[in-house]
Amino acid sequence: MSFFGDIPKLKYEGPETDNEFAFRHYNPDEIVMGKRMEDQLRFAVAYWHSFAWEGGDPFGGRTFDRPWFGNAMDKAKAKADAAFALFERLGQPYFCFHDVDARPEGSSFEEDLKYLQEITDYFAGKMETSGTKLLWGTANMFNHRRWMSGASTNPDPEVYAYAAATVKSCMDATHKLGGENYVLWGGREGYETLLNTDLAAEMDHMGRFLNMVVEYKHKIGFKGTILVEPKPQEPSKHQYDFDVATCFSFLQKYGLENEVKLNIEQGHAILAGHSFEHEIALAQALGVFGSIDMNRNDYQSGWDTDQFPNNVPEVALAYYYIMKNGGFSTGGTNFDAKIRRQSLDAEDLVLAHAGAMDVCARGLKAAAAMIKDGGLEAEVIRRYADWQSDKIKALMDGATLESLSDWVLKEGVNPEPRSGRQERLENYINRFV
Amino acid sequence: MSFFGDIPKLKYEGPETDNEFAFRHYNPDEIVMGKRMEDQLRFAVAYWHSFAWEGGDPFGGRTFDRPWFGNAMDKAKAKADAAFALFERLGQPYFCFHDVDARPEGSSFEEDLKYLQEITDYFAGKMETSGTKLLWGTANMFNHRRWMSGASTNPDPEVYAYAAATVKSCMDATHKLGGENYVLWGGREGYETLLNTDLAAEMDHMGRFLNMVVEYKHKIGFKGTILVEPKPQEPSKHQYDFDVATCFSFLQKYGLENEVKLNIEQGHAILAGHSFEHEIALAQALGVFGSIDMNRNDYQSGWDTDQFPNNVPEVALAYYYIMKNGGFSTGGTNFDAKIRRQSLDAEDLVLAHAGAMDVCARGLKAAAAMIKDGGLEAEVIRRYADWQSDKIKALMDGATLESLSDWVLKEGVNPEPRSGRQERLENYINRFV
Amino acid sequence: MSFFGDIPKLKYEGPETDNEFAFRHYNPDEIVMGKRMEDQLRFAVAYWHSFAWEGGDPFGGRTFDRPWFGNAMDKAKAKADAAFALFERLGQPYFCFHDVDARPEGSSFEEDLKYLQEITDYFAGKMETSGTKLLWGTANMFNHRRWMSGASTNPDPEVYAYAAATVKSCMDATHKLGGENYVLWGGREGYETLLNTDLAAEMDHMGRFLNMVVEYKHKIGFKGTILVEPKPQEPSKHQYDFDVATCFSFLQKYGLENEVKLNIEQGHAILAGHSFEHEIALAQALGVFGSIDMNRNDYQSGWDTDQFPNNVPEVALAYYYIMKNGGFSTGGTNFDAKIRRQSLDAEDLVLAHAGAMDVCARGLKAAAAMIKDGGLEAEVIRRYADWQSDKIKALMDGATLESLSDWVLKEGVNPEPRSGRQERLENYINRFV
Amino acid sequence: MSFFGDIPKLKYEGPETDNEFAFRHYNPDEIVMGKRMEDQLRFAVAYWHSFAWEGGDPFGGRTFDRPWFGNAMDKAKAKADAAFALFERLGQPYFCFHDVDARPEGSSFEEDLKYLQEITDYFAGKMETSGTKLLWGTANMFNHRRWMSGASTNPDPEVYAYAAATVKSCMDATHKLGGENYVLWGGREGYETLLNTDLAAEMDHMGRFLNMVVEYKHKIGFKGTILVEPKPQEPSKHQYDFDVATCFSFLQKYGLENEVKLNIEQGHAILAGHSFEHEIALAQALGVFGSIDMNRNDYQSGWDTDQFPNNVPEVALAYYYIMKNGGFSTGGTNFDAKIRRQSLDAEDLVLAHAGAMDVCARGLKAAAAMIKDGGLEAEVIRRYADWQSDKIKALMDGATLESLSDWVLKEGVNPEPRSGRQERLENYINRFV
Repeated sequence: MSFFGDIPKLKYEGPETDNEFAFRHYNPDEIVMGKRMEDQLRFAVAYWHSFAWEGGDPFGGRTFDRPWFGNAMDKAKAKADAAFALFERLGQPYFCFHDVDARPEGSSFEEDLKYLQEITDYFAGKMETSGTKLLWGTANMFNHRRWMSGASTNPDPEVYAYAAATVKSCMDATHKLGGENYVLWGGREGYETLLNTDLAAEMDHMGRFLNMVVEYKHKIGFKGTILVEPKPQEPSKHQYDFDVATCFSFLQKYGLENEVKLNIEQGHAILAGHSFEHEIALAQALGVFGSIDMNRNDYQSGWDTDQFPNNVPEVALAYYYIMKNGGFSTGGTNFDAKIRRQSLDAEDLVLAHAGAMDVCARGLKAAAAMIKDGGLEAEVIRRYADWQSDKIKALMDGATLESLSDWVLKEGVNPEPRSGRQERLENYINRFV
Repeated sequence: MSFFGDIPKLKYEGPETDNEFAFRHYNPDEIVMGKRMEDQLRFAVAYWHSFAWEGGDPFGGRTFDRPWFGNAMDKAKAKADAAFALFERLGQPYFCFHDVDARPEGSSFEEDLKYLQEITDYFAGKMETSGTKLLWGTANMFNHRRWMSGASTNPDPEVYAYAAATVKSCMDATHKLGGENYVLWGGREGYETLLNTDLAAEMDHMGRFLNMVVEYKHKIGFKGTILVEPKPQEPSKHQYDFDVATCFSFLQKYGLENEVKLNIEQGHAILAGHSFEHEIALAQALGVFGSIDMNRNDYQSGWDTDQFPNNVPEVALAYYYIMKNGGFSTGGTNFDAKIRRQSLDAEDLVLAHAGAMDVCARGLKAAAAMIKDGGLEAEVIRRYADWQSDKIKALMDGATLESLSDWVLKEGVNPEPRSGRQERLENYINRFV
Repeated sequence: MSFFGDIPKLKYEGPETDNEFAFRHYNPDEIVMGKRMEDQLRFAVAYWHSFAWEGGDPFGGRTFDRPWFGNAMDKAKAKADAAFALFERLGQPYFCFHDVDARPEGSSFEEDLKYLQEITDYFAGKMETSGTKLLWGTANMFNHRRWMSGASTNPDPEVYAYAAATVKSCMDATHKLGGENYVLWGGREGYETLLNTDLAAEMDHMGRFLNMVVEYKHKIGFKGTILVEPKPQEPSKHQYDFDVATCFSFLQKYGLENEVKLNIEQGHAILAGHSFEHEIALAQALGVFGSIDMNRNDYQSGWDTDQFPNNVPEVALAYYYIMKNGGFSTGGTNFDAKIRRQSLDAEDLVLAHAGAMDVCARGLKAAAAMIKDGGLEAEVIRRYADWQSDKIKALMDGATLESLSDWVLKEGVNPEPRSGRQERLENYINRFV
Repeated sequence: MSFFGDIPKLKYEGPETDNEFAFRHYNPDEIVMGKRMEDQLRFAVAYWHSFAWEGGDPFGGRTFDRPWFGNAMDKAKAKADAAFALFERLGQPYFCFHDVDARPEGSSFEEDLKYLQEITDYFAGKMETSGTKLLWGTANMFNHRRWMSGASTNPDPEVYAYAAATVKSCMDATHKLGGENYVLWGGREGYETLLNTDLAAEMDHMGRFLNMVVEYKHKIGFKGTILVEPKPQEPSKHQYDFDVATCFSFLQKYGLENEVKLNIEQGHAILAGHSFEHEIALAQALGVFGSIDMNRNDYQSGWDTDQFPNNVPEVALAYYYIMKNGGFSTGGTNFDAKIRRQSLDAEDLVLAHAGAMDVCARGLKAAAAMIKDGGLEAEVIRRYADWQSDKIKALMDGATLESLSDWVLKEGVNPEPRSGRQERLENYINRFV
């Protein structure tokens, strides 16, 4: 008897259904902006939160009681069985995983490598059968104590080498499984105290490391995208990949702005003092938008709560900026979300994902409707329209402070401010969400 | 009778003095790290907070009652008289000002320009007499309603031109007065709502604008440094110069990383989620450290409180990073600080500055002692020492993920973590502060 | 020609209308939970933000250009004309005001009193004609410099007396105009620095003051509710009425918990680290829920942004807790909200309110649907059901630590945790919003 | 060979010593304000952080490698041996512990009780030998999964009973060991989501529970103080004991304000939006000050970092308010602080405590000097002095809004604001720290 017992495969039944185990809004085959909804949203389930996390927090231990917990290969396979049993019920096209989520922990790098090989072969079989694909793979270089002072930024070059070996193994696994992206999140790439830290050296090491990752990608012919995931802090006091702008600064400094894109998470945006839509729109303006982790932070909590999305207007705005700029290419919508540690039951795990998928579907449809209507885009174009006049183009062509100053004095320029119309735009959005 | 009445010129009397109107720690001629303390700290008084600000906050109007308040040239000159009367009492070597702090407001750009000319001529005379110099000049492009939607990022190109004319006039004034830097703080260069904003266009406009500033600097032969001042938000919901990393990203994108440096403020660092020392150390690691605004934020307030510094250990850490990397060149220690709106008296204004100067002097001396002792630097070098071994240098030379992975496997590398010794370093710091 | 020109009176036209100047969801006569929607929501417009505020912020001055700006009685009447012209267009049943919003500022308390009398007589006439009622009156004891160190908590007893006189005059005015509540918000009742503050004395003064307010209410036969409005800080560094729990502590200490209720604002809740629904639910659990200010804070801003509500799911949750506990009695939904300072036009002012009214109408209807469905309440009851069993009631009756310990030992009690079902409940909510 | 190897007992050697393993400022026998420094500060070491915590955080597991880790009685005794070996080196007079820190975990309440008995007997022997005393005992009702939804606020009455039995056992142990206080920290007494929570019922259960605790205290003749420890959130999204004001509200509502006092922590104050000195001063003003947890939060982290104190000016201000009001009675200075998870070595553990003790000693001496000087207190008295005049006393005696209003009108009262002198007071403080 499976962990999910008689929980059925969820189907789209429409908003009016009384069935808790059904989609009200997510209808994979519905066409939105010229594509199937499934192909627009590209949902992924996160292996770590849903199958490896035990329900602990800084003040309490394990709350979940899962038959697959335990450090052994048979447990790892039982975990995979449970994961694919969930995937079957949800029908989402993708999943994501770290090495340590999937394999048991051995006593040496060599043993870990062997385990990773074995479990990813097992994944490959299940992926073949089920059709579930890999959105991205990644290496967990933050949990084990060897990483406590960083991976590629560790003061110990042995750890740096170990990190290189680890990332190679995870890129190999991702490539083998046909992963569409490879993600680096540097939770320990930062510092706990500036007092013991050589910022310049650590950033150089990290820049060199990321260049090696890109070189290796090309060498093995991996066609996916290399993604870096911004987060300002936690677990470290300060993390080098603070936010989108900081990552772009780093990529430019190390010559990687055309090779690497970003995986943006709502919760991380919030922790960095930004809205999710800001980080998405900025990444697009800078040409480095890649993928999203669609999981919210609690606005009253100063740490990463990784909750499933539940606010449709917020989600709609995120998809508005994504879809307006062409939608996902290799990226997708990963739920880097965990059920609360009090949500003990198999039903909680299934329904948390299902509710999130419905929320995203509503958000996507609202975004599509706004884009079709075009009212918001038209208002933005109208607001900057003067820059397109021949007179202004001529003025600005080759302009200097002096030439513009002369013009102001000669014309007696005295600009009158114009309304920004914020509330009218907010009303406009509310027609769609 | 002057506003400051019989408040005397403050002298250094040492820590044991009972005289409230004396320096306890700031001794301009004392040699610290090979220079006079005055030449290391390079204090500046901010004209705007101390002479133009009327004591208002979002919930209340003017509390101060100053004889120089009023929009007229005689009032502007009375204000300058009061300012230089304060400078005389404090003996600090520098001041800083915005155009609108100094001149009355006219009804056209032309009139404003004439007023600016007249008042800066008046400044020049007083500077000649007193010996007080200009650390930096800047343009206030955030107060007047014309700037409500930005200056160089305004959707209206007329405002953009007006901003160019304004900056030109302020650079001219700064150059005339022998200013050692020119600062741009973009309080309205950002947005109130993303909904009406074209991020990419606004950033391009701002990048172009800053390039014009640099070109003009070279054209007029201004030898000072162009400084940009990071702040994450307030007054705007989001500001483009969010923090040091974001500014460096911007400078790189627009080819200015060798032309422009940063003016870093403690309060702004805090609002952006960083410590002051982080922002300083990062700017140094990136080669864009310029100057500081030494004014603290209240840790419990989510807005910019611009308070005079009062915590010696924090100030010492800031100067440690500044002095360890060579101290100021054209930059200095500006107090972008305002007395509280309940601090109504002339004495408050004088003593707020004097107390801050003492706090900085203590911080500087502690920093110098730490640098002389060398214990902190030695610990950092020790922590990264393995990178300097021949074995590791050989390993890392031309390394790839594969070469490092091979090494890990071959050597059976299994790194053991080493203590970060944070508390011992904190104890070490406390020997000096 | 009125300021609002040809902007028409807004009517309910349903969600599908293309008319920007219409209600899509607010239909005053629609019956929701047994009452007209207008009588459930009890909307009020805030005089201060919409008519007295000039568009300033800490970094910029006036942006609005209103014909009624100016310190004179004819301007005050023109302002009232404009206000009632807005009320006519919106059709909301209530407004709220402070003394200083309404009257010119005179040179003595006596003159201010005369002005207040005259302008409230003028209000009375317009209220008679229009049918618009007064939800609450209040005294502005934070703007003028006399209040800079507090009103009832001022170290100067003359200010305390002046505050008493001011509140008396505003209670008289509120009573004259048939106001349904009287509000006290203590923006300066707190401190800027603990160093100069006698906490115990200030709280005692404030407690005594609030007792005088209650005594005066009874003396004049005012039947409305006395409301205190919590806010944690801003303008003060710390405010005594920090949040709902702190206010309840204060009311108990000074014997007022049965006389005074609370006016709760979303923005203030957020600043205090709470969700809006928490503060509402807590006030209800403590028996002191009174009224709401329905205006949101920006989650990324650390100061009070007083924005019109725009997130339906959040608003729905607030009304769920309000309506589940019987809805408003004397309280209502006040928009203590200001249009952004870039929203210059008359249309912005009208549409900001209209959009907010629609958002609230949607929220109310969603709340009513949830209450009718009963699913959430049923789940809460189910979760605590064991407390209602005869066995547990018998156990708990007169229980002591010893009796319960004996029972645990005797029965070998070893409780198994049960799922909290958070995500399922969030999914449930999303069926309605 | 002990874990602490040849680390010696630390002695006071004065500020100039080069010995890292010595006190520079903490001199137990030095008389400060009429008592030995040891008797003023009353230091306690926290058993949980220093001996039970394994170095994990939400993103990583155990980093420490301690010989006493493991769930068995011999390990528990080895842990106690190590703890008392640390106490011997530090010479602090007190420690604090939770049940689960000290004993192994059994399979039933009965077994746990037996283990607790055994290990506390073992403690008793070591306390006898060493002279180390118990500042407070407490029950850990947050770690085990049974507590995931609260202890006294759990929806399951069996958990409530289990909590009662647990607290009884810990109060018995505390009483047996001569503990001077008993602490309740309700980390899970709150909620993760309001949606599934009956606030009123949970608060009533908690109120009843605390009354049982007080009754039991009296029954067994425990003379120590019952302390509640405020914290706003974490691990729960919202905790009922949010801050000092909220706790006082709760105590009043359940009739306990004369029976229960508060244990105040700097880190928790910060998380609640307060300064540490505010919470201390408020507790004193309300008559419920009990004890402190002297551990700081990182100002840039939104979670509880529990770091050892290192900022002398901040610590001095805390002790100023404590000492000005008579110092500790049964309370003391507990370090609820953990070394960073990268601080792996025995030396780190010893020196973190030693550094903190020195910081506190400096703070205490600065506070004593300020109190002796009396300048700050004098300034506060001066500021409120008008309230003591006969004229004002007569005016305020039996005053009403009307009587004060009459006086204002009759006298033409028009109060002129007076400077709050904040910066001068901050300068004053800096003479001492």
